[in-house]
Amino acid sequence: MDYTNHRLARQIEFLMEIDKLKQIFRQSFLTDKTRNENDAEHSWHLAMMAIVLSEYANQPDLDLLRVVKMLLIHDIVEIDAGDTFAYDVKGYEDKEERELQAADRLFNLLPPDQAEEIFALWREFEERKTPESSYANALDRLQPMLQNYFSEGQSWRRHNLTSDRVLERNSSIREGSETLWDFAREMIRSAVDKGYLTT
Amino acid sequence: MDYTNHRLARQIEFLMEIDKLKQIFRQSFLTDKTRNENDAEHSWHLAMMAIVLSEYANQPDLDLLRVVKMLLIHDIVEIDAGDTFAYDVKGYEDKEERELQAADRLFNLLPPDQAEEIFALWREFEERKTPESSYANALDRLQPMLQNYFSEGQSWRRHNLTSDRVLERNSSIREGSETLWDFAREMIRSAVDKGYLTT
Repeated sequence: MDYTNHRLARQIEFLMEIDKLKQIFRQSFLTDKTRNENDAEHSWHLAMMAIVLSEYANQPDLDLLRVVKMLLIHDIVEIDAGDTFAYDVKGYEDKEERELQAADRLFNLLPPDQAEEIFALWREFEERKTPESSYANALDRLQPMLQNYFSEGQSWRRHNLTSDRVLERNSSIREGSETLWDFAREMIRSAVDKGYLTT
Repeated sequence: MDYTNHRLARQIEFLMEIDKLKQIFRQSFLTDKTRNENDAEHSWHLAMMAIVLSEYANQPDLDLLRVVKMLLIHDIVEIDAGDTFAYDVKGYEDKEERELQAADRLFNLLPPDQAEEIFALWREFEERKTPESSYANALDRLQPMLQNYFSEGQSWRRHNLTSDRVLERNSSIREGSETLWDFAREMIRSAVDKGYLTT
């Protein structure tokens, strides 16, 4: 296609490149247990959680649009870097390096001003220093736990995970939401009772 | 699970019910042509488009958070009502009735105040009377065209569509964005040249 608008051409190129996020599959299952979920679905689900659960963020009156933007873009780097399983110690060794390279290539498809905005949002999410990024990260931890619990522990069982390990890995939920952390702990206790997690 | 927080219990029930949106498949293909896309992926993609293309909305300074919320929730009714193909005349006869029933069941899983908010957003999207809903609808028309164009017309060809029919069906893009409508027309002309659409 011959674009008459060159700025729009770059934006469309980015928007079509990120179509690939729909093919990056995660360890989590859909609750109907038929298949693993992909990053695009996960990102949509997180944005919905951000909207519905915003009253539980530790910091009241946070900038919900910024939270939603962060959640929509936070996994785009996995198009190049792949999904690193939350409990994969080895995979985490070079995760940062791989993801930075990916961010550099992918975000720079956009016009410079927008590349900078998305980069800043991605960094904010990764650094977890603002109320918005703490809340966004809490949801990013909670969502796979929910997928696991409501799929009868599909991924927890497959990886033989213990409740201690899941608690430890997800304790940062507390930084974003005390209420959701209380709920997450209830869910883990229940998961042990049901045999989805071992102790 | 025994929830100690009953409001949260309803919110989690809603959030787990909408996991089903990941299994509602559309006529559009992924750009890699391997499979049809589903509504959750489509909704994520639309929200990304809303953010990246907001400068092209006819109305400057619109409420982007409301646009994004509308796009994230607009297809949830299809969990019960199913996807109605844009060019399916018969399917459109009872679409409104089916979707209203679906909205009633699904949104009312939430606490009443939130059910009301989501209902209002869904109605606003459907009615296309505000600048936010006109822009959101423009994107909802443009995204399947992009998926089609960048998958070499997979769905257009399968349904033997003509450029006139695609132009007519999508002309409301103009109400949300003159710039994106100009772009859509360029894309249709190019699709005809490439043989993705007949005349």
